[in-house]
Amino acid sequence: MDAFRNKLDGKLAALLFFEPSTRTHESFRVAALNLGMDICGFADPKASSVAKGESLMDTVKMFVGYGVDVIIMRHGKAGAVRYIAERVNIPVINAGDDSNEHPTQALLDTYTIHEAFGKIDGLKVGMIGDLRYGRTVPSLAYALSNFDVEMHFIAPPALMLREHVRMFLEERGADFHEHDVSSLSSILPELDVLYVTRIQKERIPDEMEYEKVRRSYTVTRELLKNAKESLIVMHPLPRVDEIRSEVDGTKHALYFRQASNGMYVRMALLYSILKEG
Amino acid sequence: MDAFRNKLDGKLAALLFFEPSTRTHESFRVAALNLGMDICGFADPKASSVAKGESLMDTVKMFVGYGVDVIIMRHGKAGAVRYIAERVNIPVINAGDDSNEHPTQALLDTYTIHEAFGKIDGLKVGMIGDLRYGRTVPSLAYALSNFDVEMHFIAPPALMLREHVRMFLEERGADFHEHDVSSLSSILPELDVLYVTRIQKERIPDEMEYEKVRRSYTVTRELLKNAKESLIVMHPLPRVDEIRSEVDGTKHALYFRQASNGMYVRMALLYSILKEG
Amino acid sequence: MDAFRNKLDGKLAALLFFEPSTRTHESFRVAALNLGMDICGFADPKASSVAKGESLMDTVKMFVGYGVDVIIMRHGKAGAVRYIAERVNIPVINAGDDSNEHPTQALLDTYTIHEAFGKIDGLKVGMIGDLRYGRTVPSLAYALSNFDVEMHFIAPPALMLREHVRMFLEERGADFHEHDVSSLSSILPELDVLYVTRIQKERIPDEMEYEKVRRSYTVTRELLKNAKESLIVMHPLPRVDEIRSEVDGTKHALYFRQASNGMYVRMALLYSILKEG
Repeated sequence: MDAFRNKLDGKLAALLFFEPSTRTHESFRVAALNLGMDICGFADPKASSVAKGESLMDTVKMFVGYGVDVIIMRHGKAGAVRYIAERVNIPVINAGDDSNEHPTQALLDTYTIHEAFGKIDGLKVGMIGDLRYGRTVPSLAYALSNFDVEMHFIAPPALMLREHVRMFLEERGADFHEHDVSSLSSILPELDVLYVTRIQKERIPDEMEYEKVRRSYTVTRELLKNAKESLIVMHPLPRVDEIRSEVDGTKHALYFRQASNGMYVRMALLYSILKEG
Repeated sequence: MDAFRNKLDGKLAALLFFEPSTRTHESFRVAALNLGMDICGFADPKASSVAKGESLMDTVKMFVGYGVDVIIMRHGKAGAVRYIAERVNIPVINAGDDSNEHPTQALLDTYTIHEAFGKIDGLKVGMIGDLRYGRTVPSLAYALSNFDVEMHFIAPPALMLREHVRMFLEERGADFHEHDVSSLSSILPELDVLYVTRIQKERIPDEMEYEKVRRSYTVTRELLKNAKESLIVMHPLPRVDEIRSEVDGTKHALYFRQASNGMYVRMALLYSILKEG
Repeated sequence: MDAFRNKLDGKLAALLFFEPSTRTHESFRVAALNLGMDICGFADPKASSVAKGESLMDTVKMFVGYGVDVIIMRHGKAGAVRYIAERVNIPVINAGDDSNEHPTQALLDTYTIHEAFGKIDGLKVGMIGDLRYGRTVPSLAYALSNFDVEMHFIAPPALMLREHVRMFLEERGADFHEHDVSSLSSILPELDVLYVTRIQKERIPDEMEYEKVRRSYTVTRELLKNAKESLIVMHPLPRVDEIRSEVDGTKHALYFRQASNGMYVRMALLYSILKEG
């Protein structure tokens, strides 16, 4: 990493997080600092002019006017980041826009899979949990559709893929299958990767439905007895209780490595975007 | 700007924002970072010891004790910044104290006017909106009273200049006139500068009165048809809907340039205050 | 201090403040910046993944994964910092864990006493205020138990030392005495150091009891007339009204010097922990 230290000395990144985030915000911050960049922006919308009724575009124009070299933006409205990216003349990185996309998460997820297997082609990848309101699974599925991967989407019916994601995968000719969450144990033995996601309580208005679905799958040591030796368990984190902490010590658990990779992948992304020439 | 990069390397600025702000806080932050300064302080009073009942003076003394070279302070009480400036032995910059003053805004406003016309003397400057509770117009008027400028204050009666501002301008022998907001269109053709300000909802307790006044003036392309070719429209931002976005594309719109100038003017201010010798 | 500037260039500190703090957070931040360190983390738990139900351990593991060199942590649960320190392979500094401990405060307090007297042995130190819910007095008492010091604990019965602190001092063979707050004036003349602490309203559920105890002691110029010439009055700050501001100007008042020492002591601590070889 020292090879890249201060390679972007004097460049300025604006972290505009209109929704709070620890992991993504901090990994981008550390990545930028390691590259010698300066940082401005906010991690919390309540501290922003938005509270005074300013439009998103005006807020962003302000930072562009201050001479920032890149905007790293999270927003609570799907499509908001693309809207901005199409209207400013500097790079804009999507750090998550509601339940739509989280492309840098997909980058670190695919990097982590490749790091573990030395390849991506030929793998069987199961994705379980909240596939409807979560943004990481659609982004990962888009990325994996560039490879020869067999995808298995496992979720309660209420949380299965949205139609436009399914359509995109069909158009790409992706090899994917959908299963009810109850069939996890029967599918597990085939899988090389189990990608677990959190039920985002804030996405499910009904308290009862939330309680029902959150209990519908939990990854335990017991469950993993039927898995391949080489299975890796991934999670974008934060987790609540989808993966028991008893699993952390097993050879399958790769989610902390995955999180750590996020900072390095984001360093690489910033460097590839901003390096001179 | 590179000529000034890191000119203040190792100097430390305390940004003490007892009221939230995006624009002023971020432009000071970027200005300080561009000069190579380190930064401490808070952008949000809720994260400060004030919440534990500490006095303002004790909080400031703490930062002075940590060896900061300059204090940049916003506070919700008029006069609070002067109170501190008179009691510490390091420079204190007023980043806005309630409805009292916003001197660095006046600096960037006058710089922007001079940049546009190559002069300030001889211009006719209209200031419209909330002239009573807003702090930018009094500060700009104080600054312009140093020049041969014809000032026109345009506001609903409830939001016209406070008496002490009017008295100051009279004492300075400033050439100024007050008009009801209804006469905007008749005055506009004479103006070289139209300085628009936001109605600060938080300043007007009565909801009905707020709704009435906020609709009493809006800058549109239609309105600007009667303006001089060379008219510049300024706004301290954030705006809500005082200036329609349709105006952004016109040659009159200078408010984003104005905001951008803020960072450079604040760099110049910090450098002039803190440079050695 | 310049001798140490940038001595830790490129090292990264994570400031994980699960409870808000101005003084401790800012003094660690300035200390780290003066040493050339980069900083990540949060000053406010509401901006952290904890709000999404993430476990403390997972949050900390994330920062470790990003390559931080040291964790500086404040937490609202007693023992939480030790819990983490025993589970990660990098240094963890306790920046205060509820009413349990605040060891870096004890370091700067003992440094300040030594700076004032050129020694610690042989002094008589009175500690008054909230000795039960406050964390600074137990930590200072533990530190002073390494010296030949006569300790006097002065508090209303409801706020006297907790049993485990008393037991620790007895085991150490410390020379300490407990007095009701009413006897402050009679003990004062003997003291070399009067260490005053704030009644932490948030620690006393009952409003009436809070009002009663907070008025039970106040340090005034009048009170100090009976003190030794050389008495020093200390306070961890923030204060509410335990020490009248009229005392600030007296030769006894050392609490601002004490706060200022905090930044330097924390610089020394970070350097001693992280310096190479």
